Amino acid sequence: MIILGIDPGLTCTGWGVIAKAGSRISHIANGQIRTDKDASMADRLLELDREITDVVARYHPDFSVVEEIFVNVNPQSTLKLGQARGVALVALARAGLPVSEYPSKVVKKALVGTGGAAKGQVQAMLGVLLPGVKLKGEDAADALAVAITHAHHLGSHR
Amino acid sequence: MIILGIDPGLTCTGWGVIAKAGSRISHIANGQIRTDKDASMADRLLELDREITDVVARYHPDFSVVEEIFVNVNPQSTLKLGQARGVALVALARAGLPVSEYPSKVVKKALVGTGGAAKGQVQAMLGVLLPGVKLKGEDAADALAVAITHAHHLGSHR
Repeated sequence: MIILGIDPGLTCTGWGVIAKAGSRISHIANGQIRTDKDASMADRLLELDREITDVVARYHPDFSVVEEIFVNVNPQSTLKLGQARGVALVALARAGLPVSEYPSKVVKKALVGTGGAAKGQVQAMLGVLLPGVKLKGEDAADALAVAITHAHHLGSHR
Repeated sequence: MIILGIDPGLTCTGWGVIAKAGSRISHIANGQIRTDKDASMADRLLELDREITDVVARYHPDFSVVEEIFVNVNPQSTLKLGQARGVALVALARAGLPVSEYPSKVVKKALVGTGGAAKGQVQAMLGVLLPGVKLKGEDAADALAVAITHAHHLGSHR
C-alpha cells in the first residue's frame, strides 16, 4: 500500500510517499511545495491546495497522514500554520483519503526511539530505513518520517 | 453585483450575501454552517469546504470577503480558527472569486462609525441598512457586516 505524509506550512510544505508491503517499507518520492510570498493569502493557499491535489493524483496513496502542528508562541505564526494545515487536511479528505494525525513526539519516537530526538537524528534514521533516499529538504524529511510512523502503526499485517 | 461575506470558525462559520447596485445595497441571504463536533478534524474541514462551495454555487457572487481573524490568546483556539479560515479562503479562491480581507475594526468602523463598536450596535445597524433582514445568528451578522464593508470600499461607481 502507498502512504502519503505531509508536513504543512505556508512558506514550505513537505510531502513524502512511501510504499509498505508487509513489514517492508520503501521510498517512492519526496518533495517540498513553496508558495509565492508576494501573492495574496488566498492565492498562496490555493497554490498549496492544487499542489497537494496534484501529488495525490500522481502517486495514488491509500492513506494520508499529517504531522500535528507545533503551536508557536507567536500567534500570527500559529494562525498562518493553521491556515496551511487546514488546506492540507481538506485537500486530502476531498480526495477521499483517510487522514491520520500524529504529534511530532510520536513521530520521533517511532523513528529514533525517543520523543526528544533532534532533526539530524531523524534524518539519519531516514537514510537507514529508506536506503539511497535523497531528501528534498527538512520539511520533506519530516513528511517521510510521519508517513513511516503511520506505516508502523498500521502493523505488519497490512 | 453580488458580494459574499464569510466569518470563518470551526464550530460555526457565518455567511451573508448582499446585492449592490450603485450606492444601494440589499440583503439576499445569510446563514451559518456548523460542523459535527464528533467528526475528525479533516471531515469537519471537508464539510465546511463543501458548504461554502455550495453557497457560492447557489448565489453566484462576484466578490468574496472574509473577516480577518481575531488572534486568540489560546494558541489551540487560534490554530483551529486558522484551519477553518484557510479552508474558507481556499474554497472561495478555488471558485475563481476575488477574495478581500478586512480587520474587525475596519468592519465596525464602516458600519457604526467607530472601531470599538459592540456586537449589538453592529447588529442594530444591519437592521437599518438591510431593512427586514432576519439574522441567522451572530456569525451570520458578522458575515453580512464584512460584506457591507466591502460594498462601501468598492465605491458607488460599481
